[in-house]
Amino acid sequence: MKAVRLHEYTKRPVVEDVPDPQVRGPLDVLVEIGGAGLCRTDLHIVEGQWAQKSGVRLPYTIGHENAGWVREIGPAVTNVRPGDAVILHPIVTCGLCRACRAGDDVHCANQRFPGIDTDGGMAELLLTSARSVVRLDESLRPADVAALADAGLTAYHAVRKAVPLLYPGTRVVVIGAGGLGHIGVQCLAAMTPAEVIVMDRSPAALELVKDLGAAHTVLADGGQVEAVADLTGGQGAHVVLDFVGEGGAEREGVEMLRRAGSYFVIGYGGRVEIPTIDIISSEINVIGNLVGSYNDLDELMALAAQGKVRLHTRTYPLDAINEAMDDLDNGRLQGRGILVPGGR
Amino acid sequence: MKAVRLHEYTKRPVVEDVPDPQVRGPLDVLVEIGGAGLCRTDLHIVEGQWAQKSGVRLPYTIGHENAGWVREIGPAVTNVRPGDAVILHPIVTCGLCRACRAGDDVHCANQRFPGIDTDGGMAELLLTSARSVVRLDESLRPADVAALADAGLTAYHAVRKAVPLLYPGTRVVVIGAGGLGHIGVQCLAAMTPAEVIVMDRSPAALELVKDLGAAHTVLADGGQVEAVADLTGGQGAHVVLDFVGEGGAEREGVEMLRRAGSYFVIGYGGRVEIPTIDIISSEINVIGNLVGSYNDLDELMALAAQGKVRLHTRTYPLDAINEAMDDLDNGRLQGRGILVPGGR
Amino acid sequence: MKAVRLHEYTKRPVVEDVPDPQVRGPLDVLVEIGGAGLCRTDLHIVEGQWAQKSGVRLPYTIGHENAGWVREIGPAVTNVRPGDAVILHPIVTCGLCRACRAGDDVHCANQRFPGIDTDGGMAELLLTSARSVVRLDESLRPADVAALADAGLTAYHAVRKAVPLLYPGTRVVVIGAGGLGHIGVQCLAAMTPAEVIVMDRSPAALELVKDLGAAHTVLADGGQVEAVADLTGGQGAHVVLDFVGEGGAEREGVEMLRRAGSYFVIGYGGRVEIPTIDIISSEINVIGNLVGSYNDLDELMALAAQGKVRLHTRTYPLDAINEAMDDLDNGRLQGRGILVPGGR
Amino acid sequence: MKAVRLHEYTKRPVVEDVPDPQVRGPLDVLVEIGGAGLCRTDLHIVEGQWAQKSGVRLPYTIGHENAGWVREIGPAVTNVRPGDAVILHPIVTCGLCRACRAGDDVHCANQRFPGIDTDGGMAELLLTSARSVVRLDESLRPADVAALADAGLTAYHAVRKAVPLLYPGTRVVVIGAGGLGHIGVQCLAAMTPAEVIVMDRSPAALELVKDLGAAHTVLADGGQVEAVADLTGGQGAHVVLDFVGEGGAEREGVEMLRRAGSYFVIGYGGRVEIPTIDIISSEINVIGNLVGSYNDLDELMALAAQGKVRLHTRTYPLDAINEAMDDLDNGRLQGRGILVPGGR
Repeated sequence: MKAVRLHEYTKRPVVEDVPDPQVRGPLDVLVEIGGAGLCRTDLHIVEGQWAQKSGVRLPYTIGHENAGWVREIGPAVTNVRPGDAVILHPIVTCGLCRACRAGDDVHCANQRFPGIDTDGGMAELLLTSARSVVRLDESLRPADVAALADAGLTAYHAVRKAVPLLYPGTRVVVIGAGGLGHIGVQCLAAMTPAEVIVMDRSPAALELVKDLGAAHTVLADGGQVEAVADLTGGQGAHVVLDFVGEGGAEREGVEMLRRAGSYFVIGYGGRVEIPTIDIISSEINVIGNLVGSYNDLDELMALAAQGKVRLHTRTYPLDAINEAMDDLDNGRLQGRGILVPGGR
Repeated sequence: MKAVRLHEYTKRPVVEDVPDPQVRGPLDVLVEIGGAGLCRTDLHIVEGQWAQKSGVRLPYTIGHENAGWVREIGPAVTNVRPGDAVILHPIVTCGLCRACRAGDDVHCANQRFPGIDTDGGMAELLLTSARSVVRLDESLRPADVAALADAGLTAYHAVRKAVPLLYPGTRVVVIGAGGLGHIGVQCLAAMTPAEVIVMDRSPAALELVKDLGAAHTVLADGGQVEAVADLTGGQGAHVVLDFVGEGGAEREGVEMLRRAGSYFVIGYGGRVEIPTIDIISSEINVIGNLVGSYNDLDELMALAAQGKVRLHTRTYPLDAINEAMDDLDNGRLQGRGILVPGGR
Repeated sequence: MKAVRLHEYTKRPVVEDVPDPQVRGPLDVLVEIGGAGLCRTDLHIVEGQWAQKSGVRLPYTIGHENAGWVREIGPAVTNVRPGDAVILHPIVTCGLCRACRAGDDVHCANQRFPGIDTDGGMAELLLTSARSVVRLDESLRPADVAALADAGLTAYHAVRKAVPLLYPGTRVVVIGAGGLGHIGVQCLAAMTPAEVIVMDRSPAALELVKDLGAAHTVLADGGQVEAVADLTGGQGAHVVLDFVGEGGAEREGVEMLRRAGSYFVIGYGGRVEIPTIDIISSEINVIGNLVGSYNDLDELMALAAQGKVRLHTRTYPLDAINEAMDDLDNGRLQGRGILVPGGR
Repeated sequence: MKAVRLHEYTKRPVVEDVPDPQVRGPLDVLVEIGGAGLCRTDLHIVEGQWAQKSGVRLPYTIGHENAGWVREIGPAVTNVRPGDAVILHPIVTCGLCRACRAGDDVHCANQRFPGIDTDGGMAELLLTSARSVVRLDESLRPADVAALADAGLTAYHAVRKAVPLLYPGTRVVVIGAGGLGHIGVQCLAAMTPAEVIVMDRSPAALELVKDLGAAHTVLADGGQVEAVADLTGGQGAHVVLDFVGEGGAEREGVEMLRRAGSYFVIGYGGRVEIPTIDIISSEINVIGNLVGSYNDLDELMALAAQGKVRLHTRTYPLDAINEAMDDLDNGRLQGRGILVPGGR
């Protein structure tokens, strides 16, 4: 089969023929890829930023946002059948550790992450596990939802955790209206009655979220903390969802909180630095967020099937991986880039 | 009446005669003080550290950990009667704002804090509100429980918030086995089945908590992070309750967490500094904690009445305030110092 | 002032002049009524069904769904000022008992219920407490929202409690699309992503809720349990909100549950009868629901101000109370009848 | 191997030789039984009460409360190794359905129940799944804990669900101080600060629980509802855990509730019958409880390892099954009967 293979860090991946992966384990599921999302993390992988952390041996196939159709299953698989359209939870989990037994897949003690530390989905076929496949509603096409597998799932997970804090009359600030943020805004609109304030440096990105559920937009031009103060009657927001996590957002996000508010860290790169007296005197919380669980992905697919969460995508054939990476790197990519290996 | 009055910052307070406070408002409650706890904050007040923050006008009466007997009540008071033994919630709240209506007294939008920003309880009488008095079980004496009104309430509140995280098989680290910490350990033992690991720089303090519910004690001699790793099978603790919040505890507390663990900030003085990537990759939380609510105090008194929470105290007559302050300042005070104005 | 007074059970109330109520207590609030909702309970009161339960002494003024403008306040009132538009929480609470301190107003140990056990709001003026007044957003008119004070609040409260159970992909059945039910449907749409199935005996009532958030409607013609089974893939609903509670709904509601589902009782009249083996083998819950808290009402007003909850109303002058009662009794009243004493 | 086989309903089982079960599936675990608890359900199975419900084909091996040592594992098993001491979760689950993925094993859509609908553990060997084995702390012996696998797990599960309701100052009534009840009392003492009131018809059973955490005992002699009223200041209990569920307990349990209280159904046989007006006017809840999850069992084993939950047991060799059944049937069995196949 054809696959996007990384042979050397700092050099772009190449599309080449590799042997088809084979179903061997009882819970193995072989998936024909219908769409593989291109993510900024893929650029970072190429740059070698993940080399040490993942410990993956080169060459390998990248691609960690995958959806497609089941081609073949192992003998113990009962939840999907060949032909089923599926989206793939990004992590392959053991199912036996305490975290897995609590539905907390992401903290599985024995996990693999296709596209990061083992062969991923920018290929015609991907080998995964029955524990990672979510069947799609018949209204959904793999290429349209693939990017929800990781980016969307992360945004959903954070919003899901914030739901109990967001009753009618509350305000939530979304920092960053990009790939994750604009999914986050849609999830907030679908799942909470909170007033959503979206902040970004790009007027175009803000324009886009107005129709997705943002009550207010704030241009991050230096006056954003005061703008949020004005929009919240000087009180601050109940919840801040920070999809940026660097470049000052991680400081401003905390400043935008009201007493007993919660700052959700989703984006990363910077540092949270808060005097302990400020943490206790206003009794605020800093909440870490990783990608969502299998059930989170199942729930996000329910929202997608109901038309409540939509992605802007642009498709590329597998051979055009470097064109897609160039477009992403140079800011020419509106919405999410999706590699579509076959003709479906 | 006699009262401990602060006339000038950096100078010790004096005991002098002042007019008795009078019941004027409908919800006023006049309390004959049976015990007023002496707290390190009182030393800081004298040093002027709170001058700007409280904005209190000198001279005034200090003392913010108070218990006693109701002497007189306003016409709208229905929850206590003259003669009732009571402990005083440290904050006088409005009862009408959203926070008060949610049982979240500490975030009351219109609060006063006797002993901090208005006359406190190191006196024969204190004027407070019906909203601040918790009736004591007949087994409890005001002088014995007074110090639970603020220090104990803070420890209780943090433990109460941690209860849902502390199911059987979990581990909790308590940093600091001093005044708050040793109440915290007792609350953990009374309310959770978690394995309690207590850390302190003082072997004597650690010795004391062994009988109060600590499964393990760790001397903070530089190897404490590894010691916790060893005691938790290399995983880290589900919850860290940091009653110190400075001097490195605020860094080590975070290092002691396991994946998805929560670091509770209670003590203060230092700074929490964490790269956002560490917050998200292990999905940890930083939870701020202020003093507890009125109902928290009511619940803590239930534990005290059941004998599950006990304080070591040393009593002083009101006139001995400066002797008590000297003892506290010079580390001669084992347990908590309690000023007892009358002879009861 | 003019007031709707009940002099004798089984005889219709009369409109007559009574002395204006006076502000006497420190937290008293005198409200000029802008709208008083007419409720089926008012008919039951006239019939004498509440005589024993309320113990009220005749004559008295009925009307327990009230909104208007503050005319005068007691000296301790800080949350409203004369001229403010307000809606009234139906219960006057003490603010001092454990329930009040927990934000659980409805279980206040020392409560009064204007219009039920003391003078109510079908009058030009009503005397209430600062603890019962919620300020209205300037977009809301008292006559438009008055009926949310009790009927709407009850529906909101039940939905609010169900929110944690209603994540994406879940299904909720609403039994009864009448006054409470159609508010419930709007609250579900505003606060949850659940698929809403509405059941009623009236095709017209079902038609109305289609635009309010119902994904499916089911005519209660005898086949409703199977219809719900069909709509839920044979699994049953995660939550059933029963606004009827009699006439078989209380049996069918339980039958419509899936494993681990929850049946919320809101309407009443019948009996819940379930073998204990059925309760445990499917691990279902039966959840009681009373009217909401003060903060619930505040939140419902936030939804109303956002245009997410709307009522159909028909207004009557105070003098037309018996015409309004006739219309209600004879099924001629579409939407909610609102008595409007003044000309505003 | 030897096994206790049921050949015909209403006739006692026989001990006979059957072929050893074999590891065939990837997640299979073959366990050498160290203890198999004898339960009243086993008597009911023999009587034929479960014939239709289980649909099991005779002959088969009974025994659904099992612990022992791993003898052999399938190729995909990673959580136990041969030689490990284990207790067995009673249900063999699929790991792939929504319930399994949420940690809610008991509602698995594709489950088997050894000892009920397939061969159980009253034998020398039992074939189960990696998903059902919980490794034991080295301080625990299989024969000592076997009966916690089902009876104990059910009691634990109910208490675990009640924990958020049982803060300091609350009261909980335990109806039934038998096998499940006396585990429930120990779990309450370990996990909550609530005041525990235990009710039973047997003075001896009540005597036993006094040392296990009961603050009060109430003899069920007809005056038990009033006795609970007296012990709760006329208010009723916050939580009632009913381990009986028949013979009037299911009516009295509801009568013992305070406003907003919760009645937990655990035992069964009778019917819950409550007018809907009583459910709503006091806003009470009826909570169904089935056996606990895998993680519940893991947590219960943590309590057992800490010495917080202990069982009284009496052991029998496998051949003495009918003697053991006679003892149970005739009330001669103090504590729990445990069949111990081997000599360990």
